[in-house]
Amino acid sequence: MFAIAITLLIIEIGVPHVGEFESLFEDLVHLWPSYLGYAISFLVIGTVWANHHNRFRLISRSDHILLFLNILFLMCVAFIPFPTALLAEYIRDDLHRTTAVAVYSGTLAVTAVFFTLLWLYAAVDYRLVDRSVDPSLLRAMTRRFIFGMLLYVIAFALAFVSPAASLALIVILALIFVLPEPDGSRGPRRIRRRSVGG
Amino acid sequence: MFAIAITLLIIEIGVPHVGEFESLFEDLVHLWPSYLGYAISFLVIGTVWANHHNRFRLISRSDHILLFLNILFLMCVAFIPFPTALLAEYIRDDLHRTTAVAVYSGTLAVTAVFFTLLWLYAAVDYRLVDRSVDPSLLRAMTRRFIFGMLLYVIAFALAFVSPAASLALIVILALIFVLPEPDGSRGPRRIRRRSVGG
Amino acid sequence: MFAIAITLLIIEIGVPHVGEFESLFEDLVHLWPSYLGYAISFLVIGTVWANHHNRFRLISRSDHILLFLNILFLMCVAFIPFPTALLAEYIRDDLHRTTAVAVYSGTLAVTAVFFTLLWLYAAVDYRLVDRSVDPSLLRAMTRRFIFGMLLYVIAFALAFVSPAASLALIVILALIFVLPEPDGSRGPRRIRRRSVGG
Amino acid sequence: MFAIAITLLIIEIGVPHVGEFESLFEDLVHLWPSYLGYAISFLVIGTVWANHHNRFRLISRSDHILLFLNILFLMCVAFIPFPTALLAEYIRDDLHRTTAVAVYSGTLAVTAVFFTLLWLYAAVDYRLVDRSVDPSLLRAMTRRFIFGMLLYVIAFALAFVSPAASLALIVILALIFVLPEPDGSRGPRRIRRRSVGG
Repeated sequence: MFAIAITLLIIEIGVPHVGEFESLFEDLVHLWPSYLGYAISFLVIGTVWANHHNRFRLISRSDHILLFLNILFLMCVAFIPFPTALLAEYIRDDLHRTTAVAVYSGTLAVTAVFFTLLWLYAAVDYRLVDRSVDPSLLRAMTRRFIFGMLLYVIAFALAFVSPAASLALIVILALIFVLPEPDGSRGPRRIRRRSVGG
Repeated sequence: MFAIAITLLIIEIGVPHVGEFESLFEDLVHLWPSYLGYAISFLVIGTVWANHHNRFRLISRSDHILLFLNILFLMCVAFIPFPTALLAEYIRDDLHRTTAVAVYSGTLAVTAVFFTLLWLYAAVDYRLVDRSVDPSLLRAMTRRFIFGMLLYVIAFALAFVSPAASLALIVILALIFVLPEPDGSRGPRRIRRRSVGG
Repeated sequence: MFAIAITLLIIEIGVPHVGEFESLFEDLVHLWPSYLGYAISFLVIGTVWANHHNRFRLISRSDHILLFLNILFLMCVAFIPFPTALLAEYIRDDLHRTTAVAVYSGTLAVTAVFFTLLWLYAAVDYRLVDRSVDPSLLRAMTRRFIFGMLLYVIAFALAFVSPAASLALIVILALIFVLPEPDGSRGPRRIRRRSVGG
Repeated sequence: MFAIAITLLIIEIGVPHVGEFESLFEDLVHLWPSYLGYAISFLVIGTVWANHHNRFRLISRSDHILLFLNILFLMCVAFIPFPTALLAEYIRDDLHRTTAVAVYSGTLAVTAVFFTLLWLYAAVDYRLVDRSVDPSLLRAMTRRFIFGMLLYVIAFALAFVSPAASLALIVILALIFVLPEPDGSRGPRRIRRRSVGG
């Protein structure tokens, strides 16, 4: 499902229709907000995908509340192409930029909230996490989730002060969460099928 | 295929084009029927997906009639984005609301009928179900299917009386069918790959 | 890839925009060629999918010519949503019906030709098929492929005489190829993961 | 993800709306740049897919830099439907043909650069490649990557001289990279699930 949401991003970018005496090259350059939106959302969804994949390897049992929280979380992820298209359409528009960036960062903040709830529900008191997982590792991960969620909420608040700063924070967050996680392992590990493949 | 149908829902929501002196925020609020349709259909397809996955684990053999019924059932599921877009377009329109909700709930009712036929074909006399499955469990599941199908048919009939009540019943049904099934197990179970993942 | 092509069919059906004094119900009825195109293509792709899946279980080796033929074959399958939309648009149009049906049936005929080439390349002299496969079974399958290909070519030729007869033949062919294959087994068989699932 | 990007190519081709006294057949013939773009991009993505699949089987470990490079590489692949639609729209337009072909070949060149970086990062000093892989095989593959990358860069440069020659080179490159790789094996090999399936 992540693979589909991430690939659908491209169909929100329409081919420009060049008027007479216009340059296709300039029209394409003019579309930069679409490329920017594509790149940011691709990075964000890609990062969330890798993290979701890694977290779910630790969750060894399932119940209906987890399933329901997961549907809500995936509902947010699959929604991302819409605010991305909105961002691309209005980022150059002084009147509507704040709204577009707030909706975009707000969507990511809500996604982060559901992802954190999903994790807390599974991890607290080892409800659905394997008993063999190190308690300190579990606490480190929970801190990482809450920390990430708060930063996405800050990115949302920042949209009303400086839309550019809000987007910058979102890119930084995606880059941080691609970085190594506190999973005890150092350096390269054995590859896991489907986690890095296409 | 469920993953694709569920993710395609988002591309039915178009970015609003704000007129002069209008507010993007108000335009986005005005799009609420699209978000509502997205959320309901996501929930419905997500629930059907989880149930289809769970039911097919019990079906241990296959034949061409099952394959054909399954194609008809999937044809209904993949069709859902269309009535969802219809619902979003006409739910605010007094003249056409009844038609839109009737088509939407009618699609779900037909989907439920094919899902039930699929189950009955496989389960009656253990035609394609493993002999090791408890008969009382099988009967409980069959009751659940017929009960669900009848309620979706009632949701369709209700569309002509009160479209709002019809949609409310559909949401309630999706929430009910995410709840634990009569599969004998209580509490959390071992996770099954792909059943809760993205 | 079949799952994606089959699910994409729905986004070719646009929501009707009802004019004043018009009925949404009548507009939806008026869209019947879209539903018909959706249903036929869904059935055709679903049947091709099941057959492709079953044939590839017999092919035990691979080489680059097979890979290349397979890419050409999949290129045809993924193309089907386009002639389907064409069919839906022009089936009611006396001037253009023949062209639309000819393009539609022609696409299916070309797809059948590549599918048959794929099979012949793999099966002749057991080039890529396991030696343990019964020779008479192999011959029966080759006959079935050539028979099917010829009938799709006839459906294409028929489009110029009677578009309705051409479409009727295509539906009949899809229903025939969902029927049991000459694989020696009678009655239900053990289910194969992913072959009947969604 | 390759499967989705490759299948999405078709929805960039819109059904023509025939004017009065026009022929649907001529309108469809007039769409040849769309079919050409579809066929070239399908072939390119299909070939990249097969190669990516084969290369990743040699990469036995993963780290976050590989994951990040892979996200950037997939970002390029998922972007291809956009320059394909651009190519189809402007290939007949004398004023804009060069720009369209340059953007198209440039996208493929950037994709090739990231694919090569991905490989170099993994293969140099056996960083993430299994020690059991033959050093001369590894060197042959690295040469193949660098050779391919340079040829895609040449295709990009060629777009400014002769757009037709640039596209011809791209087709030739796709056909070359479907050919057997320097993996030591000669002739048919055992099939690998998912490498040739749909």
